[in-house]
Amino acid sequence: MNANTSGDGFWLIKTVDKKINVKGAPYLDMTLCDRQGEMNAKLWDYSELVHGSYEAGELVKIRGSISAYNGQNQLKVDRIRKVVSSDGVDISDFVPTAEYSGEMMLGSIMNVINGVADPELKQLTYALVKDREKEILHWPAAFRLHHAMRGGLLYHTLSIIKLAEGVCRIYPAVDKDLLMCGIIVHDLCKIDEFDLSPAGLVTGYSIQGELIGHLVMGAMKINEKAEALGISKKTAMLLEHMVIAHHGEPEFGAAVRPMFLEAEILSQLDKLDATIFEITSAVSEVGEGEFTGRQWALDNRKLYNHARKPVVVKAELDK
Amino acid sequence: MNANTSGDGFWLIKTVDKKINVKGAPYLDMTLCDRQGEMNAKLWDYSELVHGSYEAGELVKIRGSISAYNGQNQLKVDRIRKVVSSDGVDISDFVPTAEYSGEMMLGSIMNVINGVADPELKQLTYALVKDREKEILHWPAAFRLHHAMRGGLLYHTLSIIKLAEGVCRIYPAVDKDLLMCGIIVHDLCKIDEFDLSPAGLVTGYSIQGELIGHLVMGAMKINEKAEALGISKKTAMLLEHMVIAHHGEPEFGAAVRPMFLEAEILSQLDKLDATIFEITSAVSEVGEGEFTGRQWALDNRKLYNHARKPVVVKAELDK
Amino acid sequence: MNANTSGDGFWLIKTVDKKINVKGAPYLDMTLCDRQGEMNAKLWDYSELVHGSYEAGELVKIRGSISAYNGQNQLKVDRIRKVVSSDGVDISDFVPTAEYSGEMMLGSIMNVINGVADPELKQLTYALVKDREKEILHWPAAFRLHHAMRGGLLYHTLSIIKLAEGVCRIYPAVDKDLLMCGIIVHDLCKIDEFDLSPAGLVTGYSIQGELIGHLVMGAMKINEKAEALGISKKTAMLLEHMVIAHHGEPEFGAAVRPMFLEAEILSQLDKLDATIFEITSAVSEVGEGEFTGRQWALDNRKLYNHARKPVVVKAELDK
Amino acid sequence: MNANTSGDGFWLIKTVDKKINVKGAPYLDMTLCDRQGEMNAKLWDYSELVHGSYEAGELVKIRGSISAYNGQNQLKVDRIRKVVSSDGVDISDFVPTAEYSGEMMLGSIMNVINGVADPELKQLTYALVKDREKEILHWPAAFRLHHAMRGGLLYHTLSIIKLAEGVCRIYPAVDKDLLMCGIIVHDLCKIDEFDLSPAGLVTGYSIQGELIGHLVMGAMKINEKAEALGISKKTAMLLEHMVIAHHGEPEFGAAVRPMFLEAEILSQLDKLDATIFEITSAVSEVGEGEFTGRQWALDNRKLYNHARKPVVVKAELDK
Amino acid sequence: MNANTSGDGFWLIKTVDKKINVKGAPYLDMTLCDRQGEMNAKLWDYSELVHGSYEAGELVKIRGSISAYNGQNQLKVDRIRKVVSSDGVDISDFVPTAEYSGEMMLGSIMNVINGVADPELKQLTYALVKDREKEILHWPAAFRLHHAMRGGLLYHTLSIIKLAEGVCRIYPAVDKDLLMCGIIVHDLCKIDEFDLSPAGLVTGYSIQGELIGHLVMGAMKINEKAEALGISKKTAMLLEHMVIAHHGEPEFGAAVRPMFLEAEILSQLDKLDATIFEITSAVSEVGEGEFTGRQWALDNRKLYNHARKPVVVKAELDK
Amino acid sequence: MNANTSGDGFWLIKTVDKKINVKGAPYLDMTLCDRQGEMNAKLWDYSELVHGSYEAGELVKIRGSISAYNGQNQLKVDRIRKVVSSDGVDISDFVPTAEYSGEMMLGSIMNVINGVADPELKQLTYALVKDREKEILHWPAAFRLHHAMRGGLLYHTLSIIKLAEGVCRIYPAVDKDLLMCGIIVHDLCKIDEFDLSPAGLVTGYSIQGELIGHLVMGAMKINEKAEALGISKKTAMLLEHMVIAHHGEPEFGAAVRPMFLEAEILSQLDKLDATIFEITSAVSEVGEGEFTGRQWALDNRKLYNHARKPVVVKAELDK
Repeated sequence: MNANTSGDGFWLIKTVDKKINVKGAPYLDMTLCDRQGEMNAKLWDYSELVHGSYEAGELVKIRGSISAYNGQNQLKVDRIRKVVSSDGVDISDFVPTAEYSGEMMLGSIMNVINGVADPELKQLTYALVKDREKEILHWPAAFRLHHAMRGGLLYHTLSIIKLAEGVCRIYPAVDKDLLMCGIIVHDLCKIDEFDLSPAGLVTGYSIQGELIGHLVMGAMKINEKAEALGISKKTAMLLEHMVIAHHGEPEFGAAVRPMFLEAEILSQLDKLDATIFEITSAVSEVGEGEFTGRQWALDNRKLYNHARKPVVVKAELDK
Repeated sequence: MNANTSGDGFWLIKTVDKKINVKGAPYLDMTLCDRQGEMNAKLWDYSELVHGSYEAGELVKIRGSISAYNGQNQLKVDRIRKVVSSDGVDISDFVPTAEYSGEMMLGSIMNVINGVADPELKQLTYALVKDREKEILHWPAAFRLHHAMRGGLLYHTLSIIKLAEGVCRIYPAVDKDLLMCGIIVHDLCKIDEFDLSPAGLVTGYSIQGELIGHLVMGAMKINEKAEALGISKKTAMLLEHMVIAHHGEPEFGAAVRPMFLEAEILSQLDKLDATIFEITSAVSEVGEGEFTGRQWALDNRKLYNHARKPVVVKAELDK
Repeated sequence: MNANTSGDGFWLIKTVDKKINVKGAPYLDMTLCDRQGEMNAKLWDYSELVHGSYEAGELVKIRGSISAYNGQNQLKVDRIRKVVSSDGVDISDFVPTAEYSGEMMLGSIMNVINGVADPELKQLTYALVKDREKEILHWPAAFRLHHAMRGGLLYHTLSIIKLAEGVCRIYPAVDKDLLMCGIIVHDLCKIDEFDLSPAGLVTGYSIQGELIGHLVMGAMKINEKAEALGISKKTAMLLEHMVIAHHGEPEFGAAVRPMFLEAEILSQLDKLDATIFEITSAVSEVGEGEFTGRQWALDNRKLYNHARKPVVVKAELDK
Repeated sequence: MNANTSGDGFWLIKTVDKKINVKGAPYLDMTLCDRQGEMNAKLWDYSELVHGSYEAGELVKIRGSISAYNGQNQLKVDRIRKVVSSDGVDISDFVPTAEYSGEMMLGSIMNVINGVADPELKQLTYALVKDREKEILHWPAAFRLHHAMRGGLLYHTLSIIKLAEGVCRIYPAVDKDLLMCGIIVHDLCKIDEFDLSPAGLVTGYSIQGELIGHLVMGAMKINEKAEALGISKKTAMLLEHMVIAHHGEPEFGAAVRPMFLEAEILSQLDKLDATIFEITSAVSEVGEGEFTGRQWALDNRKLYNHARKPVVVKAELDK
Repeated sequence: MNANTSGDGFWLIKTVDKKINVKGAPYLDMTLCDRQGEMNAKLWDYSELVHGSYEAGELVKIRGSISAYNGQNQLKVDRIRKVVSSDGVDISDFVPTAEYSGEMMLGSIMNVINGVADPELKQLTYALVKDREKEILHWPAAFRLHHAMRGGLLYHTLSIIKLAEGVCRIYPAVDKDLLMCGIIVHDLCKIDEFDLSPAGLVTGYSIQGELIGHLVMGAMKINEKAEALGISKKTAMLLEHMVIAHHGEPEFGAAVRPMFLEAEILSQLDKLDATIFEITSAVSEVGEGEFTGRQWALDNRKLYNHARKPVVVKAELDK
Repeated sequence: MNANTSGDGFWLIKTVDKKINVKGAPYLDMTLCDRQGEMNAKLWDYSELVHGSYEAGELVKIRGSISAYNGQNQLKVDRIRKVVSSDGVDISDFVPTAEYSGEMMLGSIMNVINGVADPELKQLTYALVKDREKEILHWPAAFRLHHAMRGGLLYHTLSIIKLAEGVCRIYPAVDKDLLMCGIIVHDLCKIDEFDLSPAGLVTGYSIQGELIGHLVMGAMKINEKAEALGISKKTAMLLEHMVIAHHGEPEFGAAVRPMFLEAEILSQLDKLDATIFEITSAVSEVGEGEFTGRQWALDNRKLYNHARKPVVVKAELDK
């Protein structure tokens, strides 16, 4: 919906607060979202009796009108009700979702694991993924920023694998088994780092996510699993290093810097995929020949849409 | 030659100085090199009459013995003479040289230019390469550090092209024409940035290399050539941006930060290829399970040789 | 106009947006300016039929009243109309403008060029200025910050020349020809870096301004012109270096650091003039014995008005 | 022994290399040490037959003379032989050693553990220390820098405990159980981080020490032990956080920054004890009213010996 | 008072502004505070005749109701009047105040001075405190941040003394006289650095506070007093150094870095006490198991309330 | 003297050490200097009886020969004796010395003080200079780096005054009295910061120079003198601020950043004069078209000798 339009629509409630204005009248202040993005909404003269009560994560149908307010569109709600089954709408239509099914992406990754020759790496990586096979199907890769979508964790992981296949073809020194297993496990503990809404979007960091972080959690998980499976110390140590070093620099959260080739390549490809995602996302929101605003996640750069090709935020993962 | 051995050998003189010791006796202090590396050499009691006179860049035959001195091997010269044609040795055997011929690598790059659909980019890139077709065949990519070898400029360029082909397959938003042309021209002005010895190794930066640098020189060259060929301002500007931004960050020499997708990818792949080269070079000098010393060019990191694969300093460019 | 006053006045519209308030009523949200500064204005219950339609850059007459709102004065518009010729007001009275005429300042600079002994520097500098003689008469030196005024580019350039004359008197090692020519050309490509409103104020950066920047654009222009005029490579290179180095440090946009005396002096005098302008501007807005707020452009410093002299934001350029 | 003296003495060989001088004659180049420090030694005209062969870590008796060479004392060896039991010298007399016995210090720490009220923290901490009770008795706390001495790990740990007791008396918000247990386990994995010589001094980092580091190793050990003992996730997580955060800032190796009071206090007291040790060590080497050279480990500061009290490098741990 | 409550209450006016809303109606916009914190208040349709006029620093009685507005509570004022003596309220009940009386804390500090053996240090420190004995009784230690409370300066000073007593017991190298005197004088010139409201809270920095700062002011005061009392240059210099170095690093305002042991310990303990105060303050505002927002004064960290103990913002100074 | 020459010459001994070589023979290791620079010298087989004994700061006559050793010239001493009066050499011929006499420069500065209209500033500045009138005549401005010469302090101060006169002519907002007095006193306490050799060169920092620094010492001196003369607090405070802020940034030693116009101008002109001195010094040591090595004092830059003018390290102070 654009500014100065009115009508009906379905929305997912991302946040909702009951407030009282300066005249003492209660109103609802909500953030609504769909696949395209978010909008602020106000329901003036809110009455629980009349309008019902709402929580974050619920799907609603709203009638209202949109106006510009401080440079942002704002939806004035006239009517609101919860979605019912006869509306035929599905929550996954209201959250950004990876373009490929979780099953397809996990299948591709399992194929990669199958192709690993080193028996220790293969067994360890398989076990680590297997433990999370339910959550991994839909987990996002981030809170905000790159791949903050249902299935984003697999999407991001598989994109890096595709990049790494190209790298392995070119540089014979790269140990492909080690690189692939490192890629597959590097972000697995994002599953413990975030709390998720029922709709599958990150609502914030877990306590362990804040206090320990997915890098060190990942190392602890590998250590535990390797011990349980009788994997050699050295194999576990190499994977652990790749996980705790994959942010590259201490200031970006790496516990140590990458100290062997595959750890460095993982770190650089991780950054490359994330950057491509963030640049295309940012540029897709401005017109031909325009610049985006400063992007916090991209060192505060503005990005230019040169419009030589359509800007699609996508990786081809099925080829 | 190893420590505590003696015998004959051919060497290239990299530097040579006539000095006088504390007793007043003259001696020659030289740096000799071959494909494997460098060594200090001393010719005590030097007499021009007896031994002849020598300059950097000459090939010589030496008889002498090697001993450890302050943790470095040092060659004590007993006899020395210049190489003669009957010795059958060739200068290119004494400098590090790319594994593929300049002609083969330039041919591959010309094929890539041929495949560019955009006529302006194709014409401009072709003309820029054509202007340097003689020097580019053997030019190194660096003074010290990555690809400081005969033919290193083409080697490095072609390696990035190979990486970029993988990236283009995965991300449909990438404009392949623009990316490939940016890669091909990004380091061309290294030809003006370095002074070269007759043997084809960089001896230092040129005055223009210091005062202007290959990034801005590259932009000026594109601007000039585009004007001459009647190429549109926009096309020239995009290539110029890619060249002056390819070091990524101002602190690494970028005049501006990359502001569109292809400029960013060029910058990251440039770094990826250089890093892989430097890590494999460094690791190839230590044994299994050992760490290198701190590498200045790699943020002062030590690198670990896990020895899961032979460490080869190489990119496969002929596949 | 001060808070809590009402009356008539002429204003220049800097920005104007049509918005709709939470009750659905349309209103105009404008930024108005005159030589003293800017003010937000609201025209409630806006009707195009009744009030007419307006664009940025137009001069208008407004009746209204001013009140404090969130610590800022705000103008409530009662009546508005476009200026007509019989109003006798001129757009240059509504934008900050240099204290000296463009013609006078350009004349002084041409005199300096006339005094250059080195024929190459003289010819090259003259040609570069001549090419821009129309725009240079009124071009500002910045978007925001120092010398963001009509004629600011000449004002800033001439101020540095005056400073440099003092420096040349003191230090015999300084090559005055080179320093003066470097000063004259150092910011010339700000003419390509900004987009201008009809009123002569910067409205933002041009695309080339963002992607290339006025430093590298300047070097390309010198390179082009030197080639056309048959100027020696060395002369062009020295000027190019001064231009791409004049921001002093990479983090402030310099492509290289200054590497000879005149380049360093240009860089420091450029900063000195800009800083004096910014400090006097900031301090002129607070009373005796008071501090300004933190100034972003001055490393976040607060400045103190010691009030020992009247604070005038001015350079004496006609002596 | 001072410069320009000669005579007999016992030394520990820290490093030993067989080298050949420029005249082709073999010699031994050694670093010798005793409790006071180190000295370079040369045995000219070395012959294995005549002098015997030596390894790092051996105790030797040497006759020779000391001279200044490049501002450092150097020992010219005339005679050398291995120590025999009748010499009555003990290796622990030749390495810097903590002032209290390992048994006494470990006893004090065990008392602290006994005083912990929280049963989970008590059990977990006890088990972690128990696992290392053999090594901990003599382990140093560092390679170079603070507490690089036999028993230094216990010495440093107990010093922090003493500091923490004072802090707990003053601030009622501090959870003493948590703080004490965090202190006791924070550096335990230094036992895995260093390789030790037979004499009990660190010879370098272990592979795991380089690739993982004692912070993340510590977290993995706690995680493993807590699982084995059935300790709650939360208790383990708090201790793990304290360990991976105790270096305070990412640039000093912390995987995360301290996020609760006890983690912050541990981090600051760890730094306080280390700094006091380093300052007193540095100052003890210069005379009254003098400054030390720049201390790399103390942000490159010079330190001043004001000589108001005797400079003793010591903590009182038995009170 | 919580959101959505109404009733009567006493408040201290921290700031008050007369404003006019977009309809032209005047209103009062106030910040009110009591010991628990601050709240914004609006008095709509303000009339000086009806409501009276008010200034910052006055105590008032207000009837009104509280609602949430933009996530902050806001008080809508229905009635307001100044406090009269019969209300029986005291200004010190409305500003955060140290838990111990100024007299008790100053007494403890005088005892410490009495215990100093060095006659010069004792005389100098006594004289410096004596000069400020009136202001020191109630002065706060900061504008915002740690110990921004009546009596905060003594509270903070005495807390550091308690910490230092622990340190002196452990490390025999510490000169206790010097350390104690340094602690006592280190922040004394905060008395000149801040301007105070009648209620004893900092309203901002004094001109001298901004231009010179309490570190250099402290050094000048010591220098002056030492001269007057005939104290030796060396003693004065040591104290002066401790004062100008106590912020530890130039980026935190230290004029030099600490260069002897007692200066370093002062700097670290100063930071330790401040950090403990700030962490406990921040954590006391969130519930069990929650994180605070990012704390600007704590390197932008979030802090975790692990809730193992009650969070009290307090130091025990009477034991 | 150049390499491979021999003969007689006079030298000043900068440092001298008696050492013993590996064969046990004593030798003298000296640093000698004259106005052109320094050289290492060795007197082999030194015998006090034969050669006499020597101390730093003595003038000697030496016969010997110069050879290159490790890229540096080294003087082998054959004969040495102390200078006698009949040699007719003067110590001031052997240390770098300002081009103008101390009396002439001090006279110029006294003229500037005479021209100050503000009676407080005039009286205070005069008194501060008068106190040091003996030392100021010959004091250097630095240990190493810019103006490390006899009379360098006056030379540097007068150069800045000349620069400032130009600035005052251009910008009417500058308070000339304040700026001139700030310049004259800004470095006065360098007289307390350095220890001097009899020859008038800095031998190192004084204890007070290290612990307090010339910036804070300067502020203390102004404070003391202003009190003694009954100068107003405000006048003293402005000068004190200029002194403690004149290094511009905390990382370069400023206790606060400059907060008014004259303080900022002082700081920038101080840097400008120092930079011009350092660039011309560095460039004067390389040939036409060459680059210097990296200059530590100039942000590690290399400097280029474009040779358009003779490189003279000089300021014209007598015009």
